[in-house]
Amino acid sequence: MRTVEWDDQTGQVKMIDQRLLPGEFKVLGFADHHQVAEAITDMVVRGAPAIGAAAAFGLAAAAHRSDARDAAALKRELIAAAEVLKASRPTAVNLAWALKRMLKVVEQSIGSADELRASVVDEAQRIADEDVEINLRMARHGAELIQDGDTIIHHCNTGALATVDWGTALGVIRMAYELGKRVHVLVDETRPRLQGARLTAWELQQYGIPFDIISDNAAGYFLRSGQVQKVFFGGDRMAANGDVANKIGTYMLALAAFDNQVPAYTVVPTSTVDLSLAHGGLIPIEERNQHEVLGLEFEGLPVAPAGASARNPAFDVTPHHLLTGIVTEAGVIYPPFVDNLARAVKAEQGI
Amino acid sequence: MRTVEWDDQTGQVKMIDQRLLPGEFKVLGFADHHQVAEAITDMVVRGAPAIGAAAAFGLAAAAHRSDARDAAALKRELIAAAEVLKASRPTAVNLAWALKRMLKVVEQSIGSADELRASVVDEAQRIADEDVEINLRMARHGAELIQDGDTIIHHCNTGALATVDWGTALGVIRMAYELGKRVHVLVDETRPRLQGARLTAWELQQYGIPFDIISDNAAGYFLRSGQVQKVFFGGDRMAANGDVANKIGTYMLALAAFDNQVPAYTVVPTSTVDLSLAHGGLIPIEERNQHEVLGLEFEGLPVAPAGASARNPAFDVTPHHLLTGIVTEAGVIYPPFVDNLARAVKAEQGI
Repeated sequence: MRTVEWDDQTGQVKMIDQRLLPGEFKVLGFADHHQVAEAITDMVVRGAPAIGAAAAFGLAAAAHRSDARDAAALKRELIAAAEVLKASRPTAVNLAWALKRMLKVVEQSIGSADELRASVVDEAQRIADEDVEINLRMARHGAELIQDGDTIIHHCNTGALATVDWGTALGVIRMAYELGKRVHVLVDETRPRLQGARLTAWELQQYGIPFDIISDNAAGYFLRSGQVQKVFFGGDRMAANGDVANKIGTYMLALAAFDNQVPAYTVVPTSTVDLSLAHGGLIPIEERNQHEVLGLEFEGLPVAPAGASARNPAFDVTPHHLLTGIVTEAGVIYPPFVDNLARAVKAEQGI
Repeated sequence: MRTVEWDDQTGQVKMIDQRLLPGEFKVLGFADHHQVAEAITDMVVRGAPAIGAAAAFGLAAAAHRSDARDAAALKRELIAAAEVLKASRPTAVNLAWALKRMLKVVEQSIGSADELRASVVDEAQRIADEDVEINLRMARHGAELIQDGDTIIHHCNTGALATVDWGTALGVIRMAYELGKRVHVLVDETRPRLQGARLTAWELQQYGIPFDIISDNAAGYFLRSGQVQKVFFGGDRMAANGDVANKIGTYMLALAAFDNQVPAYTVVPTSTVDLSLAHGGLIPIEERNQHEVLGLEFEGLPVAPAGASARNPAFDVTPHHLLTGIVTEAGVIYPPFVDNLARAVKAEQGI
């Protein structure tokens, strides 16, 4: 199944409960936008595209659930529901983007309440399908960069679980594998939330792709000792010059790849590129709860001393000169990024 | 108290049980060399100098415990006891060094059994005292590098707990603080064994030095955003050109410091330098049990999926060009390291 999907029988949004992975695989059903908003806040679902699709389906659930008989009343309900969904994870760019697109359909609808219901469900489905389609295009472009026998370092989770299906960087690796290339993945555990150890390792098990988990700080050892041929990671937000904000640790990984002449690629849909930002220094960096750093246990014992404090930046910015190429649905973009990226984004986004 | 010390009343070796920190502070007593060997194997004590002193005191305990009346019989017992201690942590260079020094005293003794007992205890005490003395000299030299108001990233545990007292890199920071300089430490948690979060944070609490724990992969963010003025770490083994093997993650940290023109210093006694090794590529890297990577828990749940495997290199090599200086008991050594290091080592070690 997909990470997030619409169940037409019940009018429910179905999601894999990612909080339980890798220990337990459980699919939950959410009947209205309040439940979906709560699921987003509680991180049942994470990963920018998956959150966007979940919010869109959340609005579809609100439409399905509503007993409003006239279109104007339903519109008012949906606009209110969108506010609830938007507040569930305020910093998620994709969530705002998906809801904006959904509200455009709501506002432009001129039919009956039932026609509006149908078009809201259709638009949410379209958002989800387009995400899968874009990921598949990225995966095909990126897979050409991988050689048979490559060992690849991958950071965070960028797989099917972070998107609707396939994923970004992990989708590239999966596609290479499905095309018959033998690959071995060194999975950065990705402190502090450990999405690599928890989610990427689990996905790779499902796909049958061989891997080893490593601590993030060991990547340099493997790169320097010549055991790695490629580095792949995703991106949360990219500036016009190719500087990319991504999960904390990406910068140090890209730096170690660069220092050892190992190609490093970020895999991002063109929708991630913000041409209005000249460089990565303009991207704000969220600092998250220190419990993510301090709450670790090992063999049943807490790791940090009582009363200790932590700093927990969630992202860092990798400067574009450390990137070998940027894999997008429009193809692999090479330097000079500032020109080639603008061209690809404008062509793809029709702007 | 010191991390490892000799209790003359009971003839026991006392050690802080580092396995229980930071949750519990407990001092254990060990009555003979078998118990001390077991404590080293079980990591009651860790850190190269601390292990060396523990082994030396282990031999002192064997001498104290033995009821041998003639010196020749006691010598044979002590040679056998040294074998037991040596096998407790086969890769620890300091352990072998300390036992070799102890056995020299044993072999050269020409007095009675009781005189041999006394000289074995004296030599072990001398090894411990010399470690403290060397650390204090390093701390004084290194503290001059720190400015009032500095924020410093520190990797692993290099403090009193890793040595007999004071420590290496953390000793430098502590000395600067005791000399009245205000410092703030960003403590790399230091996956996989988390000695930073567990031990360095605990030590800093004892000293009253302000700190925050960070995940190792966040160091790059703090360096790149201009929040860090110095980076300090220890070293397990240094080649003649200054390349230094240290706890996994040091290389990526030094690389990120270098990329942002933040000075990075390794703090090592000259005994750590192996002039017979031309460069760091000749230093063998131990790979440890994968459970250290896979055994993590968060909020009571195991992190890695069942059946996952891990790679776990314990050390990496930081090339000398990433080091601003090498702090030794002979002073701070600057490039060209290959000449200046040899001069300092030969002067200090009298070779």
